Amino acid sequence: MQLLLIHSDYIEYEVKKSTPVAEKIEESFRSGRLDEALTAFIAVEKVDESGVDEVINKALTEIRNVAGQVKAENIMLYPYAHLSSDLSSPKIAVSVLKGIEKELSGEFNVKRAPFGWYKAFRISCKGHPLSELSRSIVPEGGPVSCGEAIAVTDEKEEVVSEALKAESTAKS
Amino acid sequence: MQLLLIHSDYIEYEVKKSTPVAEKIEESFRSGRLDEALTAFIAVEKVDESGVDEVINKALTEIRNVAGQVKAENIMLYPYAHLSSDLSSPKIAVSVLKGIEKELSGEFNVKRAPFGWYKAFRISCKGHPLSELSRSIVPEGGPVSCGEAIAVTDEKEEVVSEALKAESTAKS
Ligand SMILES: [Mg+2]
Repeated sequence: MQLLLIHSDYIEYEVKKSTPVAEKIEESFRSGRLDEALTAFIAVEKVDESGVDEVINKALTEIRNVAGQVKAENIMLYPYAHLSSDLSSPKIAVSVLKGIEKELSGEFNVKRAPFGWYKAFRISCKGHPLSELSRSIVPEGGPVSCGEAIAVTDEKEEVVSEALKAESTAKS
Repeated sequence: MQLLLIHSDYIEYEVKKSTPVAEKIEESFRSGRLDEALTAFIAVEKVDESGVDEVINKALTEIRNVAGQVKAENIMLYPYAHLSSDLSSPKIAVSVLKGIEKELSGEFNVKRAPFGWYKAFRISCKGHPLSELSRSIVPEGGPVSCGEAIAVTDEKEEVVSEALKAESTAKS
């Protein structure tokens, strides 16, 4: 799974057109908006199919962690295929998105944008250092990419993570 | 290079905080806005270092092609590290971004958001089928990922590209 977390002044969407794999949706689900939200753009990947529950749990940990840091009470789950070139089946993607939604719903005000629809959206990213974070999540048992370490969770905070780490070390 | 092209009602940004690899910028470059624009979110990758001119040229082809299809006259080039987990050096990234900017500037109204700064941004994606497209670009001579074909340009139009192609074939 590729996760892109954006601390947002607002995020809103409306569906424009279905694709052949569009989720069937209720009228109320055709548009949505959250203010002061953590927006989680999510691409569920082929490798996630080997450990759906595990990937859901790791995503929950990341989302809860960042929501806590930025003090967000509202969470928008937004399927975003363009974050990966090796996507899961649509069926698995929807089950993962719904799984995350269900688990977060007790703790946060959660909305989920529908899968498989062309959507217009507007987002405002706050721009502070924690307002854009990305995470790569893979199941422990999943295949390992060639030449890469087994990254259970690969933190990639910015272009400049190494430089930032150096700066932070120098300051502490 | 990972390219995410968004046909936007508007895109605007303002810098919030420099990182250690921040480009030095003029005051006028601290914020920017374009209406009715093609926004190109760009991650320059390690593999691009082996063929900078080639990657610039391929990116130009993709941007010109999509700008033509959506009839955009304004182009915002926006560095976006979170599209890749294998980034180029900051120096190469800036040279690629400037190279693209220079080449497009005769044909389009081009703005470029500065590299290496935390930025707030607001974007409105139009939502029609060509309003969100992603492209993976690698130099011909670059290393090949394990288990993958040599993808010079990998088109990934949606989760559902195959299904959409089937639909489009059925209609034509
Ligand atoms: Mg970023």
